[in-house]
Amino acid sequence: MAHLNLFIHGCGHHGAAWRAPGSAVERLGDISYYEQLARTAERGLLDAVFFADGHSIGGTSVADGPNWYLEPLTTLAALARATTRIGLVSTVSSSFYTPYHAARMLASLDHISGGRIGWNVVTSMFDDEARNHGLDALPPHTERYARAAEFIDVVTALWDSWPLEAIEQDRAGIYAHPDRIHEIDHRGAHFVVQGALNVPRPPQGRPVLFQAGASEPGRTLAAGRAEAVYAVAHDLRAAVSFRSDIRTRVAAQGRDPDRVAVMPGLVCYLGGTIAEARAKQTALDELLLTESSLRRLSVFLGRDCSDWDLDAPVPPLPPPSEFTGPQGRYATIHRIVETEQPNVRQLLGRLAAGGGHATMTGTPETVADAIEHWLDAGGADGFNLMPPTLPDTINDIVDHLVPELQRRGRFRTSYDGHTLRSHLGIPTPSAEEASASG
Amino acid sequence: MAHLNLFIHGCGHHGAAWRAPGSAVERLGDISYYEQLARTAERGLLDAVFFADGHSIGGTSVADGPNWYLEPLTTLAALARATTRIGLVSTVSSSFYTPYHAARMLASLDHISGGRIGWNVVTSMFDDEARNHGLDALPPHTERYARAAEFIDVVTALWDSWPLEAIEQDRAGIYAHPDRIHEIDHRGAHFVVQGALNVPRPPQGRPVLFQAGASEPGRTLAAGRAEAVYAVAHDLRAAVSFRSDIRTRVAAQGRDPDRVAVMPGLVCYLGGTIAEARAKQTALDELLLTESSLRRLSVFLGRDCSDWDLDAPVPPLPPPSEFTGPQGRYATIHRIVETEQPNVRQLLGRLAAGGGHATMTGTPETVADAIEHWLDAGGADGFNLMPPTLPDTINDIVDHLVPELQRRGRFRTSYDGHTLRSHLGIPTPSAEEASASG
Repeated sequence: MAHLNLFIHGCGHHGAAWRAPGSAVERLGDISYYEQLARTAERGLLDAVFFADGHSIGGTSVADGPNWYLEPLTTLAALARATTRIGLVSTVSSSFYTPYHAARMLASLDHISGGRIGWNVVTSMFDDEARNHGLDALPPHTERYARAAEFIDVVTALWDSWPLEAIEQDRAGIYAHPDRIHEIDHRGAHFVVQGALNVPRPPQGRPVLFQAGASEPGRTLAAGRAEAVYAVAHDLRAAVSFRSDIRTRVAAQGRDPDRVAVMPGLVCYLGGTIAEARAKQTALDELLLTESSLRRLSVFLGRDCSDWDLDAPVPPLPPPSEFTGPQGRYATIHRIVETEQPNVRQLLGRLAAGGGHATMTGTPETVADAIEHWLDAGGADGFNLMPPTLPDTINDIVDHLVPELQRRGRFRTSYDGHTLRSHLGIPTPSAEEASASG
Repeated sequence: MAHLNLFIHGCGHHGAAWRAPGSAVERLGDISYYEQLARTAERGLLDAVFFADGHSIGGTSVADGPNWYLEPLTTLAALARATTRIGLVSTVSSSFYTPYHAARMLASLDHISGGRIGWNVVTSMFDDEARNHGLDALPPHTERYARAAEFIDVVTALWDSWPLEAIEQDRAGIYAHPDRIHEIDHRGAHFVVQGALNVPRPPQGRPVLFQAGASEPGRTLAAGRAEAVYAVAHDLRAAVSFRSDIRTRVAAQGRDPDRVAVMPGLVCYLGGTIAEARAKQTALDELLLTESSLRRLSVFLGRDCSDWDLDAPVPPLPPPSEFTGPQGRYATIHRIVETEQPNVRQLLGRLAAGGGHATMTGTPETVADAIEHWLDAGGADGFNLMPPTLPDTINDIVDHLVPELQRRGRFRTSYDGHTLRSHLGIPTPSAEEASASG
């Protein structure tokens, strides 16, 4: 069975989605827009809705399109009351919160949602974000990941600090047993936290831990702690390699790799015919503000692309080994150019929708074929769906792609349980595990 | 017109409320309990619901009763969707959040609620809370207040950093005007924050600023910045003196004191007859866990009270001038003993319900008389209602006390506007004020 999340972002993940005539750009501050998306995802029996997060107005100009609007934790609380079964995952940065805030908000949300919360831990990427929280710049990558690992351990210990068995609620005289609630007395390299948490144990025991980093320290973190992994894999080969590596590392930590779902991002364009799906994609790419897209591409490639012809093939790019700037994005672009031979506008479109995530364009049947192929080849346990436009692409997914996957026995036909752990097939940590880690 | 908030806390503000047979102690983690309270308050046309906050499991033993459960900002997001008109006020500590987090969450909540958010700024009181956020102890009182003043200024500047006029949403090519969104570049004694906020300007411009500190620096803070003040006044004399002082200080800052509502806490016991109301109060006081209450009283009075006879009058207390421990609470207790001559059990009950806030016990008519007297004598612009038990006391207030106040022309008979600012009669800051402070 595949797992499917709806990754909600603005008017959709394509950078030009907001310019489409039917876009919801006027509703980005309106919580009922997000409620509608979450209800649609729940109608499709998806595992969860998923939110990214950022702490600055963002790297690109606000002229070119919307970036952040509502804060995700407050948004999730509202969505928890607009839905009853679907999981609710928010990104929370370990670089800007204190672990007590994070543990408390996530535990509170898990109560409010009846056990449907997931936490996508990130270490954040931009110095602009650090400068909004009193730092001059982000700490170096390895230090951020060391902090993240300790952050997760503190949050987990806080969740475990107040076990359910502590609550008596006996009106004759004892509300809770003080001797069953323990301080965590954490004194580490990055955090000093006394505890206990002031929220009794959340319904899931611990909200589900997602992790999204693909770097070496990111993979190490995932291996030891993550319960689901959101991955960037631009094609099946990259996906198989990444998932296999994660599973090996998870097993090496003595954990069961079948209980760590690897979910690459997936951008889908769906149509009644392949031609119709391609036309949707082309129409969206043509809405791109090409001047600013070429400016961004120039940064990624370390050369001036501003005079490139949009309808000409992308000129040959030097191999990544000869590129001296940031590797990850350059390698993805190089690979897309090698394997797909796009023209310049198509490349800008690929990068504008999910920035190098897998893209599938076709009918519900051909996309379901591709999804089955990824699942069977070991590239994915499911996908974090990144619709290029919202709400229409998620409507298409729920109305056409999900039923096709259900017909093939690849997706649930009803929710079995009421918690995100249940949807993902991850057991609630037992009382013993909880007290052992406490 | 009086302003009335419902201050929601657990099973009610009386320390023994959770032990009452009909208490909601089993529902404290259930968001629908709080939604029901907020809907009742909205049915009564109250200005707002109000939440306190704390960052540790609290000063008293968990054996003696519940303290914190759900986190208030996530709770407010859910309540925003369960109500349509009533204001939603949460306490946020300036000692533990970064101003960027606070500004962002409150702005997001203001969008989610359509302009109904208030922020009660506090500096926090307990070293236990500091030790959950990486500090050994709270900074000294004056330093906390200096930090709070700067914190408020940064949060306000962040709210003002993205004016509505910046958003164009023109699909032809410009989402927002970068030149109308400004960095705040704050570099102060306590905070360094670049800005801009990544939430466009909230519907109220700025969520309403409540302040609750009664100390000298607390009053100074209120004078310069607060738009509503939550006060502790155990009797009318104290209330008149406090409100008069605040109004003088507000005017001295060049602000209009009629736009700063002073709202003392008020504990009401309501009955069909005065005897019935008193019987409710007595029944609740008799549920107090007297051993732990006497232990707490011993701390407040600096002497051993554990062998005091519950049904005997409180022994004479030395005047506050001779007491060497913390003054505020001792002075309140001394005054209650002098003016009300309670027996020991009654004193414990007074302290157990709101800890020294005004208490009115009677019929809707006699309590309305007392409220009118406070309003006319200049003791209050309204009240932060602290029902000793929930939900039953707020039901009584909405069904009986509110109609009595309406008959007397002392309380609204419908909501005029849709924002908390509108309920409180505080204008939205103009674009000029906003840009002047930016």
